[in-house]
Formats: sequence, structure tokens, C-alpha cells
Amino acid sequence: MTVQYIHRVASGSALMSFYLLKRWRGSVYKVVWKDLAVYLLIYYCISFVYRFGLGEQGRENFEKLVLHCARFQAVLPVSFVLGFYVTLVVGRWWETYRCLPWPDNTAILLATHLPGEGVEQVERRSILRYVVLCITLTLAAISPVVKDSLPTFEAMVKRGFLTDEEARMLEKHKADSGQQVAWVPIVWACRAVHRARREGRITTDLGHKSLVDEMLCLRSLCGRLLGYNSHNIPLVYAQVVTLAVYSFFVFSVIGGQFLDTTKNYNSHTVDLYVPFFSILQLVFYVGWLKVAECLLNPFGDDDHDFEFLSMIDRHRRMVEMLSETAASDLPSLAPLAE
Amino acid sequence: MTVQYIHRVASGSALMSFYLLKRWRGSVYKVVWKDLAVYLLIYYCISFVYRFGLGEQGRENFEKLVLHCARFQAVLPVSFVLGFYVTLVVGRWWETYRCLPWPDNTAILLATHLPGEGVEQVERRSILRYVVLCITLTLAAISPVVKDSLPTFEAMVKRGFLTDEEARMLEKHKADSGQQVAWVPIVWACRAVHRARREGRITTDLGHKSLVDEMLCLRSLCGRLLGYNSHNIPLVYAQVVTLAVYSFFVFSVIGGQFLDTTKNYNSHTVDLYVPFFSILQLVFYVGWLKVAECLLNPFGDDDHDFEFLSMIDRHRRMVEMLSETAASDLPSLAPLAE
Amino acid sequence: MTVQYIHRVASGSALMSFYLLKRWRGSVYKVVWKDLAVYLLIYYCISFVYRFGLGEQGRENFEKLVLHCARFQAVLPVSFVLGFYVTLVVGRWWETYRCLPWPDNTAILLATHLPGEGVEQVERRSILRYVVLCITLTLAAISPVVKDSLPTFEAMVKRGFLTDEEARMLEKHKADSGQQVAWVPIVWACRAVHRARREGRITTDLGHKSLVDEMLCLRSLCGRLLGYNSHNIPLVYAQVVTLAVYSFFVFSVIGGQFLDTTKNYNSHTVDLYVPFFSILQLVFYVGWLKVAECLLNPFGDDDHDFEFLSMIDRHRRMVEMLSETAASDLPSLAPLAE
Amino acid sequence: MTVQYIHRVASGSALMSFYLLKRWRGSVYKVVWKDLAVYLLIYYCISFVYRFGLGEQGRENFEKLVLHCARFQAVLPVSFVLGFYVTLVVGRWWETYRCLPWPDNTAILLATHLPGEGVEQVERRSILRYVVLCITLTLAAISPVVKDSLPTFEAMVKRGFLTDEEARMLEKHKADSGQQVAWVPIVWACRAVHRARREGRITTDLGHKSLVDEMLCLRSLCGRLLGYNSHNIPLVYAQVVTLAVYSFFVFSVIGGQFLDTTKNYNSHTVDLYVPFFSILQLVFYVGWLKVAECLLNPFGDDDHDFEFLSMIDRHRRMVEMLSETAASDLPSLAPLAE
Amino acid sequence: MTVQYIHRVASGSALMSFYLLKRWRGSVYKVVWKDLAVYLLIYYCISFVYRFGLGEQGRENFEKLVLHCARFQAVLPVSFVLGFYVTLVVGRWWETYRCLPWPDNTAILLATHLPGEGVEQVERRSILRYVVLCITLTLAAISPVVKDSLPTFEAMVKRGFLTDEEARMLEKHKADSGQQVAWVPIVWACRAVHRARREGRITTDLGHKSLVDEMLCLRSLCGRLLGYNSHNIPLVYAQVVTLAVYSFFVFSVIGGQFLDTTKNYNSHTVDLYVPFFSILQLVFYVGWLKVAECLLNPFGDDDHDFEFLSMIDRHRRMVEMLSETAASDLPSLAPLAE
Repeated sequence: MTVQYIHRVASGSALMSFYLLKRWRGSVYKVVWKDLAVYLLIYYCISFVYRFGLGEQGRENFEKLVLHCARFQAVLPVSFVLGFYVTLVVGRWWETYRCLPWPDNTAILLATHLPGEGVEQVERRSILRYVVLCITLTLAAISPVVKDSLPTFEAMVKRGFLTDEEARMLEKHKADSGQQVAWVPIVWACRAVHRARREGRITTDLGHKSLVDEMLCLRSLCGRLLGYNSHNIPLVYAQVVTLAVYSFFVFSVIGGQFLDTTKNYNSHTVDLYVPFFSILQLVFYVGWLKVAECLLNPFGDDDHDFEFLSMIDRHRRMVEMLSETAASDLPSLAPLAE
Repeated sequence: MTVQYIHRVASGSALMSFYLLKRWRGSVYKVVWKDLAVYLLIYYCISFVYRFGLGEQGRENFEKLVLHCARFQAVLPVSFVLGFYVTLVVGRWWETYRCLPWPDNTAILLATHLPGEGVEQVERRSILRYVVLCITLTLAAISPVVKDSLPTFEAMVKRGFLTDEEARMLEKHKADSGQQVAWVPIVWACRAVHRARREGRITTDLGHKSLVDEMLCLRSLCGRLLGYNSHNIPLVYAQVVTLAVYSFFVFSVIGGQFLDTTKNYNSHTVDLYVPFFSILQLVFYVGWLKVAECLLNPFGDDDHDFEFLSMIDRHRRMVEMLSETAASDLPSLAPLAE
Repeated sequence: MTVQYIHRVASGSALMSFYLLKRWRGSVYKVVWKDLAVYLLIYYCISFVYRFGLGEQGRENFEKLVLHCARFQAVLPVSFVLGFYVTLVVGRWWETYRCLPWPDNTAILLATHLPGEGVEQVERRSILRYVVLCITLTLAAISPVVKDSLPTFEAMVKRGFLTDEEARMLEKHKADSGQQVAWVPIVWACRAVHRARREGRITTDLGHKSLVDEMLCLRSLCGRLLGYNSHNIPLVYAQVVTLAVYSFFVFSVIGGQFLDTTKNYNSHTVDLYVPFFSILQLVFYVGWLKVAECLLNPFGDDDHDFEFLSMIDRHRRMVEMLSETAASDLPSLAPLAE
Repeated sequence: MTVQYIHRVASGSALMSFYLLKRWRGSVYKVVWKDLAVYLLIYYCISFVYRFGLGEQGRENFEKLVLHCARFQAVLPVSFVLGFYVTLVVGRWWETYRCLPWPDNTAILLATHLPGEGVEQVERRSILRYVVLCITLTLAAISPVVKDSLPTFEAMVKRGFLTDEEARMLEKHKADSGQQVAWVPIVWACRAVHRARREGRITTDLGHKSLVDEMLCLRSLCGRLLGYNSHNIPLVYAQVVTLAVYSFFVFSVIGGQFLDTTKNYNSHTVDLYVPFFSILQLVFYVGWLKVAECLLNPFGDDDHDFEFLSMIDRHRRMVEMLSETAASDLPSLAPLAE
Repeated sequence: MTVQYIHRVASGSALMSFYLLKRWRGSVYKVVWKDLAVYLLIYYCISFVYRFGLGEQGRENFEKLVLHCARFQAVLPVSFVLGFYVTLVVGRWWETYRCLPWPDNTAILLATHLPGEGVEQVERRSILRYVVLCITLTLAAISPVVKDSLPTFEAMVKRGFLTDEEARMLEKHKADSGQQVAWVPIVWACRAVHRARREGRITTDLGHKSLVDEMLCLRSLCGRLLGYNSHNIPLVYAQVVTLAVYSFFVFSVIGGQFLDTTKNYNSHTVDLYVPFFSILQLVFYVGWLKVAECLLNPFGDDDHDFEFLSMIDRHRRMVEMLSETAASDLPSLAPLAE
């Protein structure tokens, strides 16, 4: 579910930062605590062995290893690659959001160009149902959540997205061509508009064209959504970044050990027992990486993923409101209040 | 309120930098002084304890801690993550600005395609009122300032945004569908345009189409505004950045202490009493972070937020000027002065 | 005035870099020399006092201060924040350029759809005058240079931008609504187009629509220009960057002093008397900052600002050429030379 | 073939990172293992010579060389230039993807405006065949894979992309003008649409215009694809980046050697035999570079390249489904389920 | 001439990197070898003087200078500013490419809406000639190469771009208005389209509108090209970057000298005679800078500049093929092969 926090930061008070930091849902603590637990477990195992389990020679060898790891820990530019990678992923995530299709304009156009109560109402309902069906089929193709909820045409029939007859036709198209059939309802909708124009219920060619253009635009958005799903950021890039972050912590779990302060190793003058700085680094870097992992595929059920099921539900209610009720009652025109 | 300073930097003189630095409203000093006060309070408490409150052993332990903190203070790439984060936030802020809907084009189109004094004037007023109402309902949904000013349909009726009849209809739609009803006035406006075309007051189909397209475009902008509001930058990202900045200063308040110069600690050869460099860092980093916090939600009442109330007022005056007065009097055509 | 240098770098020879470096107008030397003079004055004052004015203890304290400043001089990531900030400002500058409205398309459309010599010519002239007037009023609202040249409607009447009658009408609109009136001439132009269509001088509805669309598009560009002017980069950001750069040099003027080479301070083994590296840093960083300051408000009279006055003049000549002369004489059609 | 991994990261669990890391196809390991093998071979040859093949003086000279290389190894900002370069290449790769033309909208428009079974069906088929032919000719011009599969017009005739007559006409155009002929089928398609309009099978001018606009838009996309192919990122840039990465490893293979720990060289206190950190750097930097190399030309047969052959096949099936079957059977309109 | 290398990197083999590195034309070696030669000449002069020409005191002073220069060589963030600057320049270069106007769509539209052999053919040829003339005049205004090839209207007449009559008219317009006249042929073309519509050769208003829109769009692209030419990246920015790179090497030529290894200067333990690392830095930084210099003005005759002459020639052939030959022979419609 999308995490809403922005209404709390409207006034930009001095305490806003602390409000931001204390949220749990969709928070950095929630996404890193498992990694942190594993890290601390390993850290204290090693620390315990060093402090109590090694002989003098072993301790000295270990200390040299710690110094070596600490020195080279930063060979990979973790922050740098994370900066570029997260920027890329956040950019794609937002572009994806902007590709989400909304049927509202189609509903308003229908209410404008195809008003009336009889067959017009049936047509409006059917056309909007086809549009929502196209959106739903697209989302079912990319989102496991929607797929789970509406796995088959039967399930969609049961929920009122399409009729038995239409389901049979889609099944047949699918079997014949082996392609996804999300565009077929758009063909139906365009042809229904065409018939309404031919039979005079839509009174102008321009109305016809507006409706068809709007639906084709909506289809193009669905197509782009499928493109975002099938052509993601190259796996190599994701691996390079993940490798950099986790290898950093593999070396950090050794290089971050506190050494015997009596041995005067450079920069090992205090022993705080708790590796505050390493923990902070882990929360920071892994948290930053998780920003990317959450947004990489926004079609799932993460805290930050798009909520497609409620979105489909919203579409159905909204198009009904815009095309059904609103169509029949236009308020009497009144001048702008003086 | 938006901070206007740009007219003062038109000529780019050598003193421009100083003009920039001495502004207070919307300035970096205004946004960081509270943080700075807290920082200095803690800094001098610690400093006082170190200078007067600790024994020799305590002082030595404290000095080791200071050196440790100073050494690791920079483990997080604060400037780096701030650079990427602020770029992202500023980009979104400006995209949001560009999504703000303006009714001016609709008003000009109405003045062009639906001129005249009688029922045409009533229609122009009503349609523009619906358009402004749609914008107002959208802004009320995202801005607490507008919400406070126009909390209910009644308040809007009182201010002349809609009639009692229309308010009742919107209430009913809202109750029936559970959706936001900002699009309903657009349906009304489109249908009023349709009727004016059918009854011949708008003389061309293309005029009809231009008006409907313009209003749908305006609705899409409103929809995108809602999207910017509901899908903000992931909370994880905001937390990671805030955490980096504030943890930097938690360690700075210890690591930035001046130590006894007689002990020959490396890089502790002078005692200036005032931590100029730490203060500068705080103003800089916290100021940079506040840039982001101010712009993260531009719908509030920060110094940098959009001024929606005066914008709505401006829309009402502007559409009145463009559609009412201007419509009646066209100057006699005169050739371009030779 | 815009600085033209690009034609000199067309061939990319090895000497191109030197050509670039030796330009003065709009150059980095011109923008930084004042800052550099102030810096050197202070630098040599301090240097003089250190070399001749201080006792042994004072010199030693001063040397410690120099070392302290030199060590912490780089605490702020000046280059980093400048990189992001300048990228942002240059991006906005170019977007602003792309928002500049050009009346050329309107003139061509008029020459196409409203040809002829009699009333058509008067109409073409008037409509284009309205379009140029809209652009001029917009530029006068954002550019002090245009404002100075055309401060009142009277001044515009005198220069032939509008007639006395039109000036009176604009004055009245302005007084009545309290809004800027740059859109009113667009209303006039649209209505003149509408009348020409109604009376058959424009022969097609599509011609009418093309003209109105083009003028609304032009108005939207004017509106976006006003937006770029009223909502600039947040002041906090500009202050943070300016503060970083100048505080860098405040510390540099101390930390960059040459110390007595006989005292064996680390990295103080030579005394060159002239601080080449600090000067280079100043030219570089302040020059980079000035890139941003010049472009932050491109509506003034900097070397890099847009030249609105000659642009307005160009518009008037260009629309005259495209609509007047060109309209009357179409060359006899001749086939493409074999 | 495009690498699909995104469906596995839908839920963002804690193990997702490990799933990402263990993939082989299209993975970082697959792209770097050859480079790594060469690196290790050279590394151990040098190591072997140093440990067993050199006299005392030779060892000492070699050690100085190692220290020198290690010190200057980082003179080039490899990570920095890679960050900017990869961002650029990934951006272009995605823009290229968005330029890929899809014939779906044309098919839907034909099904809408040119329904029917007789000559209309023949026309629909021909027009869509022309559109797919234009896409195929474009892809054959940029992708060696498509070129290999469809090297000549004869091969295309055999596969049913065009008739013998059409192939002869294209051959002739090609010979006459010396230009690529991918646009010629679009001319045919536009003229076929024009004829269908003239003879009344397409009933409205707007339908005609929609079809022509859609096909011109598709042609523009094909033109942009050709532009991406002919004007790639400047060779200098690619060379600078490649040079930086490989020279880094040339110095690393010397500078990364373990030295005799008994000689107390600074930072050479342990001898791990396996250069873990250098290997990690190589995997990281070369992997990052390979991201760019894979995406630089997405028209080949890399793991990350676009699969044009199956895309062409998909176009043929999809347009058949949308224009043939769907055209004949429109479901009976049924209202939205209550 | 544009450098084509991308077809060689289609398969992404392990040797691709080496293929990239060994190219000469448009390569980094070609652009930096002169700078490198100058650098090495100065380097070895200084080296020779140091090794053989200085007394003991002079050598010692020189060594101190070398150490001083080496220490401060990196005061300017060369890589950083180059990263941002090159990103900006490459972005502009590609935007410029995308502004290049192509007459293909106009030719296809003419073949569709104005078919036929008699006066229609003459009109098609003239209109397309005007369009190509507009493009040619624009390119001649920005590219010295095109200007050299077509310096006057006479030269264009001789090459068949326009007739004597048209040249006289353009000369007159130019003299009268003092403006560039590239838009005038577009006015002619629009008016020719208008006449063809009025006289019924173009059968629909929509065809008329499509043609006019396409030509206005093309004119806007030409206008944007002129804008890219007249408003380039601010000179200050180019100077700041060039200054940073070259001052780096001024200090490098001193600071990179090898010193007497017997004096135990830190990091001066080997004397390799050839400054490998400095050479690499120079090739890298200067090469990176040259990327920007080549792309800064893509209208010249660099290896990376656009080839306008062959582009104009291509336009003439292409529009002839699309409008002449193709118009007369439409293949008999045949169904999609089963």
C-alpha cells in the first residue's frame, strides 16, 4: 500500500524532521532491521571469538586482518553508485506512475457526446466497462496481486467485469493468436462508438473522434505499462549495486571490530563495544538500497507499491458516477455570484 | 507565501551575492536557527563539563571519544545524498507547479465561441464557475490551507463558488459513490457546452471540441496534482537523508569539541571557543535539507509553498475579466502603425 | 546581450580552447575580477601584518590559526553543491528560453487563411499587432529592461504597439479587475478571427481553429514565462550555495597564507609570495557561481540575459514581412530542377 | 533476449537481494568472467615471478614499483566517469525503447473506420501489411539479427511480408533514388486509405485523418530509431571511459600485489594470497562498464538487447487478431453489472 | 562526419572494448595528440634542466616547488566539473539532433492528399522544393559548411533549390525587412496548399490542415535550431571548465616530475623517466573535455558534427522518391499471406 505521510509535512515546522524519523510503516527501520540483525549477530560472534577465543598469535593475525579490511573497506564507491542508481529507479517509478491509465476522461466524453437514458445508457455502460476491462487485463498481466484476485475470465465474469459471451470471445482470441487480449475490448468499444455515430446517437464526427482518440491514448498507456514491466533496468546494474553494498558490509563486519586499545593501533584508541558507526552506515546504505528495491517493481504488494485493486474499484465507481448519475441532471445554469 | 527575490538579481552586479545573503524571509537563517540553537546549547553543555567538570581520567577518556567521533564523523556521505535528494525534490516541486491548472484558456475560448449578452453570458459565467469549482475542489483536497478556508460545500456556496442546488447534487454524488466529486462540475460544463452547440449558440463543432478538450486537459492536470499529492517521494528516502544529516551532527557535537591544546593531539592546536566550522557545516547541511523539506509538500503554508487562496481569487477575477468585459467591446481594427 | 562565441568553435581545432579562454565579454574574468581584487587586498593586508607587524608569540598563534583554517577549509563540499546547483539553474534557463513565444506561426497562418488586400489586410495587421502586444506586455511584466523602455500604455501607443482606444480599454480592464491585462489582446485577436470567419473572409472552420489554437498556445507560453519569473529556485538554495562559496574564501584568505618556511610546518616548505592556487580556486569557484547568478534571472541586462527589446523589434518586422509582403506575391509554381 | 527478473522482486522480501545476486543469465558474472580470468592469470604470473623468480635487488625494485602503482592507481576518477556515462547510456537505451513503433493503434483504427468483410477486409490486411513491412524494413536496417533473418526482398516475399509485385517496386525505388525505401509502404498505405475514403468505404474525413496521422506518427518513430542508430554517443566518450577502466586494472595488477610482510611496508602487513579487494573492484567496475556496453547498441543479440524477431512476429499476429477476427463479432451490448 | 562505430558493438563480445579502443577516426587519440605532444615537450625540457642544468641549491628549490605543486595540483575538482559539463553538452547535442527537420512526412502527406500527374505534380514538386529550401536556408544560417557550399541565392539557383524569380523575391524581402527569410518559402508553400484546396485539387479541409500543420511544425523545428545556435551554453561555463583542465596540467607538468630518489622525498621512491600516470591523466581529462568541445557546436565539420550537406542531398532524393514515383503506382492490394 502506498505510504501517505505528506500531509503531515505541510507546514514545515522544526519538528517535521522528527515526525519523518519516527514513522514505522514503509520506513527505513522496517526494511533494514533483518539485515541489521544478521549483521550484529555475525559481528558479535567474531568479536566474542577475538576477545575470548584466540591465542596471542591468533589475535595478532586477526588484528592485522582487521586493519587490512578497514583500510580497503572503502575501495568500492558505494555511495556514488547508489546515488546514480536510486536516481534512475526513482525516475522510472514516477514515469510508471504517470503511465497509469485513468478512464475518467472517457466517461466525461461519453456523458457529453452520448447523453440520454435509453440505449444510450446501455452503450455508455458497455463502453466504459470495456475500457475498465482493458485496464484490468493489463494490470492483471503485470501485477501478481491483481492476478491473484482475478486469475481467470470466469473470476472476472463473476465480479461483473464482463459477460459470459465476452469471456468466450476473449478465450477464443487468446487461443487463436497466442497474444494477450487486453486490446480487444478497446476494439469493441471503438466499434460501439462507431455504431452509435452511424445511427445518430453521437451527433458529430468530432465527438466520435474525441472518444476514439481518448481510448487509443488509454491503450497506449497500457502498452507502455507493459513495456515498463517487460524491460526493466538491466539485471547487471542491479547486481553491481547490490554486490557493492553487501560486500561493503562483509568487509565492515571484520574491519569494524574494536581492537585491543593497549596495542596502540592507529585509530583504535577506544573500545565502545557497540559499533555505532558501522550500524549507522548499514542503516543508511541498506536503507538507500531498499529505496531502489521497493520501487524497482512497483506492481507488487510492498508498502510502496501501487494499490491496483483499490484503483480498479475506484475506476468502476468513478465512471459510474461520471456517466450515469451526472448525465441525467444538469443543474440549472446560474450566473457567477457577484 | 512564495518568496520573490528574483527582481533584485536582474542586473547581476557584484553586490548581488550580498543581497541574496541578507534576506530573511524564506531564508536559510530562518529555517535553521532553531536547529542551531539546540546544537549550540548541547555543544556548550558538553564543553563546560569537559573543561570544568571532569577529572584527569575522565578528560582523557573524553578526549579519546572526541578523536574517535571526529575521525568517523564523515562516514556517511551527507553532501552526496543531499545533492541527489534535493535535485529530485526540486524537480518534483517544479513539475508540480507546471501541473497547476489555469482557467484562462477556457475563458478566452468561451469569449470567442460563445459571445453575446443574453443567455450566452449566463452560460459563460456558469461554465467558468464550474471550471473554477473543479480547481477549487481539487486544491481543497490537497492543501490544508484551502481546506481550512473552504471546509464544506456550504462555505463554498457562501463564497459564491456554487449554488445551493449544485451543492446538494455534489453531496448526493459524494454519498452515493464515495469518490471525490471534483470532476462532476467538469461534466456539467461539458454538457452545458454541448447544449449551447445543439441550440446553435456555439456555431461550430470545432468550437465545441476546443472547449471540451481544454476542459478535459484541465481536469487531467487536476488529476496529476492529486497524484503528486498521494504518491510522494518514498518515505524511506526521506528518512535516510534526514537520518544522515542529523546523525552527522550528533557526532559533530562531540567530535567538534576543542581539546586541551597542551596535549598535542593532532589537529587540536588551537582553541577558538566558538566552533566556527561546525556552525557553518550545520547552517549549510541543515539549510540544504530544509530546501527539500520545504518543497516536499508545496501545498502547505511554508514560505515557499504555493499560495492557493490568492490563486483561486485570481482565477475568479481573471475569468471574469476575460469572459465578461472583454467580450462586449472589441476595439475597432486599426492597422499596424507604420 | 547574449554572448555569441559558438561560430568560432565550429571546427574544433586544437586552438579552440585558447580562443575560448581569451574572450573578455561575458567571460569569467569579467565576472570575477572584483571579487578577486577584494580577496587579494585582504590577503596581502593579512600577509603584511604577519610578516612585519607581529611579535614572536603573535606569529606563532597566527601560524596555528592558519594551519587550523587550512585544515578545515574544505569542510563544505563547495564543488559538489555548485555542480548540482548550476545544473539546476542552467536547466531552468534553457527551459525559460524554450518558453519564449514567437509570433511567426500566427503570421504564416494568417497569410494562408486570411489572404487578400482590403479589410483582410487590416485584420491581419491588427491581429498580429495584438499578438505582439500580448508578448510585449508579458515581457514588460518580467523584464526591467522592457519596463524601462515601455513603462506605460502611453509609451506603447507612441511606439505604435496599440491605439489610444485600445490603451483606454486596457487601462479600464486593469483598474476594474486588478489583474495583469496581457491576455486581453489575445481575446481581441480571437474575436477578430471569429468575426472574419463568420463573415466569410476565413473560409474554413479549421482555419479558424488553427489560428485560435496557435494564439492560445502562445498565451500559454507567456503564462509559463510569468511562472518562471514568479516561482524561481527557492531562496534557501541560492543562499546555501552562496554561503558555501564565500565562507570558503573567508577561510581561504587566512588558511592560504604562506608561513615561515624555516619553521618546518608540514606543507609549508616554499614561500611563493603570490597564492597561485588560491587565486585559481577563487576564479574557478566564483566563476562557476556566477554562471548560476547570471542565468538565475535571464530577464535583466547581464551579458547572458535575453535581449527582449531587439526581440520585440524583430517580431514586429518579421510578422510584417510574413503577413504583408509575402501575402501578395506568390511565385509562379515551377517544378523541382532536374 | 531481454532478461526478465522483475516478477521475482514483486514482494520485496529480505531475500530479494540474494535472488538478484544468484541469477546467471544476463548477470554481472557472465559479462565479467573472461576479463577476470585474464586478470588473475596475469596477476599470478607476476606474483609467481616476484615470489620465486627475482633476486634481492629485483625484488626491492619491484616493491618500489608496486608501491608507486598502488599510490597512483586512483588518479583517474573511474567511478565518477562511469556514473555519468552509464546514466547517459541507460537514458538513451530507454528512449530508444520508447521509440519502438507498435502497429496496434493502426489496427484498431482500421477495425473502427473500415469494418466489413469484402474489399474492406482486403484493404485492412494490405494496409496493416504495409505498416508491418515499414517496421520490418526499419528494423532490418538497424539490427544485424533481423538483417540475417530477412536479408533480401525475396526472403521477405517468401515469409509473406510483401508480394512479388511490391518487391519489384521497392527494388526499383531503391535503385532509382539510392535511399532506404522503408517509407514507401507508408505511402502505399496512406494512398490506400485515401482511395477507401474517396470510394466511401471509410465514411468520414476524420477517420481518414486519424489513420494517416497514426501512420505518419509510426513513420516518425521509425525515423527516430534510425537516428538513434546512426548518431550514437560520441566515440571519444566511449573510449575515455573504457580507457579509464582498463588502465585502472593495468595498474591494479601490479599495485595490488601482496609484498613481503617482513619488510614493514606501510599497508602491507598481511599476505592473503588471493587479492579479494582487487577482484571485487574488477567485478564491480568492469560490470558497471558492461552495463553500458550492453545497452550502447540494443539492436544486437546480447542478453539485454531487444528481441526484434519475436517482436515482428508478435506484430503480425496482433494486427491480425485486432483487425480480422475482432472486426466481425461485436458482443451484444450489456450494461455494467450492478 | 558522424563517426559510425555502433554496428561493430552489436554483439557485445569480450573483445568489444578493444575494438572500441583501437579506432582512430573520431577517437580520443586523434583529439588529444597535439596537447599531449606539447605537454611532453615541456615536461622533458623541465626534466632535462632539473637533471643536468641546475646546481645543488637550484635543485633543492626546484624539488620544493615540485612537492608544492604536486600537493595542490588537485585543488580544482576537474573530474567533477567535467562530469556535469559534459552531461550538459551531450544533452544539448542530442536535443539539437532531435530538432533537425525532416521533410518526409510532408512528402507523404502530399502524395496522399494531392495525387495526380498534371498540375498536381507541379504543385507537389514546388511545395517540397519550398520545404527543402526553408531547411537549406536555416542550415546555411547555422553551419559554415553549408554556407561555404551555398553562399548566395545565385549558388542555390544554380543548384536547383529555387528559381531566379524566387531568388529575386527573397532578396527583396531580405533587403526590406533586414530579417532572415527562411520562413518565406513556408508562406509560399502554405499558400500553394491553400490554392490547391480552393481549386479542389486537395479534396478535404482536413488534408489542407494536415499539410499546413506539418509545415508549421517543421518551421518551428528550424526556429529551435536557430535558437540552439544563438543561445549556447554560457561562455563563463565553458571557460571555467577549460581553465580547470588546463591549469591542472600546468601544475602537473611541474608536480609530475620525478625527483632524485636518493633524497627520500615521500612518494618519490622510483624514477620511471616516463610519466605514465600524468600522460594517462592528460589523455583522460583532455579527451573528456574534447567530447564537450566537439559537441558544443555540432554545426561545423568536426568528426562528430552533423553532415548537413549530405543531409540536404538526401532530403531532395527522398522527397522526390516519396512524392513523384511512389504517387503514380500503387500496388494492387493483396491480402496478408496466410
